[in-house]
Amino acid sequence: MLKPLGAEAGKEQRGRVLVVGGSARYPGAIVLAARAAARCGAGVVTVASARSVVDAIAGSDPNLTFFALAEAQPGVVATASAQLTPVIAEKVKALLVGPGLAHAPGTDEFVGALLRNSRGTPTVVDADGLNALARTEDWMKLVPPRCVLTPHDGEAARMAGRVVPAGSGRIAFAERHAREWGATVALKGAVTIVTDGKKTFVHDLPNPTLGVGGSGDVLGGAVAAFLARGLAPLAAACAAVWIHGRAGALLASEIGESGALASDIADALPRAMREILRAS
Amino acid sequence: MLKPLGAEAGKEQRGRVLVVGGSARYPGAIVLAARAAARCGAGVVTVASARSVVDAIAGSDPNLTFFALAEAQPGVVATASAQLTPVIAEKVKALLVGPGLAHAPGTDEFVGALLRNSRGTPTVVDADGLNALARTEDWMKLVPPRCVLTPHDGEAARMAGRVVPAGSGRIAFAERHAREWGATVALKGAVTIVTDGKKTFVHDLPNPTLGVGGSGDVLGGAVAAFLARGLAPLAAACAAVWIHGRAGALLASEIGESGALASDIADALPRAMREILRAS
Amino acid sequence: MLKPLGAEAGKEQRGRVLVVGGSARYPGAIVLAARAAARCGAGVVTVASARSVVDAIAGSDPNLTFFALAEAQPGVVATASAQLTPVIAEKVKALLVGPGLAHAPGTDEFVGALLRNSRGTPTVVDADGLNALARTEDWMKLVPPRCVLTPHDGEAARMAGRVVPAGSGRIAFAERHAREWGATVALKGAVTIVTDGKKTFVHDLPNPTLGVGGSGDVLGGAVAAFLARGLAPLAAACAAVWIHGRAGALLASEIGESGALASDIADALPRAMREILRAS
Amino acid sequence: MLKPLGAEAGKEQRGRVLVVGGSARYPGAIVLAARAAARCGAGVVTVASARSVVDAIAGSDPNLTFFALAEAQPGVVATASAQLTPVIAEKVKALLVGPGLAHAPGTDEFVGALLRNSRGTPTVVDADGLNALARTEDWMKLVPPRCVLTPHDGEAARMAGRVVPAGSGRIAFAERHAREWGATVALKGAVTIVTDGKKTFVHDLPNPTLGVGGSGDVLGGAVAAFLARGLAPLAAACAAVWIHGRAGALLASEIGESGALASDIADALPRAMREILRAS
Repeated sequence: MLKPLGAEAGKEQRGRVLVVGGSARYPGAIVLAARAAARCGAGVVTVASARSVVDAIAGSDPNLTFFALAEAQPGVVATASAQLTPVIAEKVKALLVGPGLAHAPGTDEFVGALLRNSRGTPTVVDADGLNALARTEDWMKLVPPRCVLTPHDGEAARMAGRVVPAGSGRIAFAERHAREWGATVALKGAVTIVTDGKKTFVHDLPNPTLGVGGSGDVLGGAVAAFLARGLAPLAAACAAVWIHGRAGALLASEIGESGALASDIADALPRAMREILRAS
Repeated sequence: MLKPLGAEAGKEQRGRVLVVGGSARYPGAIVLAARAAARCGAGVVTVASARSVVDAIAGSDPNLTFFALAEAQPGVVATASAQLTPVIAEKVKALLVGPGLAHAPGTDEFVGALLRNSRGTPTVVDADGLNALARTEDWMKLVPPRCVLTPHDGEAARMAGRVVPAGSGRIAFAERHAREWGATVALKGAVTIVTDGKKTFVHDLPNPTLGVGGSGDVLGGAVAAFLARGLAPLAAACAAVWIHGRAGALLASEIGESGALASDIADALPRAMREILRAS
Repeated sequence: MLKPLGAEAGKEQRGRVLVVGGSARYPGAIVLAARAAARCGAGVVTVASARSVVDAIAGSDPNLTFFALAEAQPGVVATASAQLTPVIAEKVKALLVGPGLAHAPGTDEFVGALLRNSRGTPTVVDADGLNALARTEDWMKLVPPRCVLTPHDGEAARMAGRVVPAGSGRIAFAERHAREWGATVALKGAVTIVTDGKKTFVHDLPNPTLGVGGSGDVLGGAVAAFLARGLAPLAAACAAVWIHGRAGALLASEIGESGALASDIADALPRAMREILRAS
Repeated sequence: MLKPLGAEAGKEQRGRVLVVGGSARYPGAIVLAARAAARCGAGVVTVASARSVVDAIAGSDPNLTFFALAEAQPGVVATASAQLTPVIAEKVKALLVGPGLAHAPGTDEFVGALLRNSRGTPTVVDADGLNALARTEDWMKLVPPRCVLTPHDGEAARMAGRVVPAGSGRIAFAERHAREWGATVALKGAVTIVTDGKKTFVHDLPNPTLGVGGSGDVLGGAVAAFLARGLAPLAAACAAVWIHGRAGALLASEIGESGALASDIADALPRAMREILRAS
């Protein structure tokens, strides 16, 4: 599970994270996800997005690095740009696909090609990445070996082709589909279920502080950081869900239940992580 | 009235806010209004502005989402771009029109078309949105059913076609015009009057901290957030005025009566909201 | 002298400030000056700069408003753009000319034309604005009635055509030239002399915290804010020098003598102002 | 060694720093290095980078000044732009070459030309600046008289053409090559060795907080600031390494061992510097 970094840990032990997403409408989502990854201790975080999106955000956080993707139209990545080999070859230890990606002609093919090119890199698929999969035939074949899928109920329903049941049926739903999809699933909601189909963990500490736009992007970045550090998918997803939840609880007590922003959640992750590392 | 969020509240219960405004001269006003809406607990906040204005601000706050409007000239929205159906259809629960919109050829028609296309979404009209109405014949026909108008005395005079009287006559003025205009009116000033023509609330806690540029944009964003959360127009306007006023009082004691910026007011809203929620 | 704002003070009582300057090399100087003016309580602060400079900084502070000037080449204002009537007509109460303006063909003529068009608005000339004057024949004829000039010794020497003497001769130098130039002079340095040629105040609290790039821009913004609030030039310059100095002392005790940035000085101005208002 | 600034220290006593680097992929590295230099007390910090990189970052920190270099392609400096005479002539007291420079056709020639044009200005070469040297024949002839090289083991191996030995052999390696290269060497790692080949200092306080992307850029900026203040290369490198390390220790205790960003390290430098100045 999650352990403190060794005293001599550098960039490579911390691990490199590549976040792929963003669009003209959602330029902030990849910044939030990338910052969350950095706040969870990733060694280097690279944002890959359509060139005009990179232009918009390149000055917003000096701690991030960027990779501009060719675009089909302003803010929409070209499918051909899924050939990310030059970046992935650079020691990327975890890939996060989806934050703010939106949907445009070619998005689904882009996500598919990206996963095919990922060379087995541990991968998180979130948000519009999941929606792109749901629209792709036989998408389960695209799921790489060490993969975490982080749908909320609406996205999960689109992926499963059926409504997510309430109550305890929701746990069984997540477990069954984790097995079927060959991935660790974090089924997000007021209650979040993390399962690889064999072991299941339920985070049942509902907190409205976490119910803001961008909160899911932050969670996705946290999962990627823990994958990059070397955790197995189930452990990485659990660490992220619990630390994200604890960050929300800290903010609820400090700022109140309304008004904490997703960027506040990202910046509160180190304190939450420290509490959890100390308690364990 | 304003109540704490339920433990399971997510983006949709918090409500989505769409802020329409901005211009080359006033790019910050929509950022302030949008941030204030987020700080008052809105689930998702989208800024719709002329394309070149969105280019300027898209990297300034990762918590916001953006919708670039076609422009007639740099920084000036094209009237035809008032067809915001794709965004409004996305579950927007409150619309704020006006912050930083400025005045250019076509602005008045743009505001009129926007209100006609708003499909009954609860709406706040502020600042240059109000000035656009005042220049439009029969503008009262454009006022949607659940609407809050937030003029200061100068804007109110232009809308009413007569000077706003001082003293107690100011209350009667606000009440009469709220009825005539078919809207909740927040008549802003050192003393702010909130009325729907039937019930009237007077916020009489003058505070120079609130007298800075952008403070009104922050107030508009707060009203929109409370509308989006489901409050009735009168309740939303009152909650916003009192919380905005309390935020100003907090800053006066912390920073002093000069020097707090509108962005400070926006960021102080959660603390003010929490005090008021606890006291009620 | 400087007094607290009245309880009902709004934007117009606080006063509007227009800052003219900036260049491709120094885009931050006008942001610092404008932020300092806002931190000293100005009601509205507008930055006027070459179009490409405005493009670079328009997203950097939502509390500021902008006016893009036509440019002769990227980052260099066209002389003809000194016709700022539309902005100045908008109730601007104080003009600050020079921060980050740099020197390019046409700069001197631009500054001259700006001062001729200023319609008697109280004005601060700083930095490259002063250098532009020093290169202009008969520049003293351009000095408006209520004007503060804020040279350091190098700039003062260029304006006077002779070296600034050390020690007590420096005071006599400032007084003589304040009379000759028909302006209030703040001769900046480790010791700063403020004089209108009749009354003289000496700020003799040397502090290395204030010796960083941008510190002078912050001071210029403070003078402009106090002019905009209605103070006479000598009172405005004194208030700014003492509050700027006090802000530096606060930062020296908090951050240390090295490492405070000019933006820290700007943000510390309200606390310094409050101390001085309470003590007086 | 490092001493407090005199009470009357201004920009020139603090010294001017020029940071050359940046690329489309790494726009933040020069911002981090420049901010670190400012946080270590540099009087003025100028960032020189490819024009499109400057466009991306010019609004990100008002305390910095900029010099846009002609580019061969977007984000890649043209070799001819190494003729930085106009900036260097402006009283630059220390040059930092390399942060975020990346590698593209012409980079190596650019770095070589830059060093040839540096007119004996005290210089730090870091990161991709070192890699450019390692690819250049007879690069040791380019090393200016007062030069600090700050390789990690990988960069040092490329420069030396042989693997860096572990343990005490690493000290001997650094000492031998400092003599051979004619420079002060800071061989970075969990343990950092600072040596001019005659005197050697070993910083043996491993801390994972410092192992994040951008941390090296911050260190480079700190060395440049101390060179600009007038310290000899060995003293400047030691001061920077110890203060950087102390900043990491402060953050480890405040934020935890994971989650502090390089920008946090930069902003913690003044507190670390103050502790060290007080203790000495």
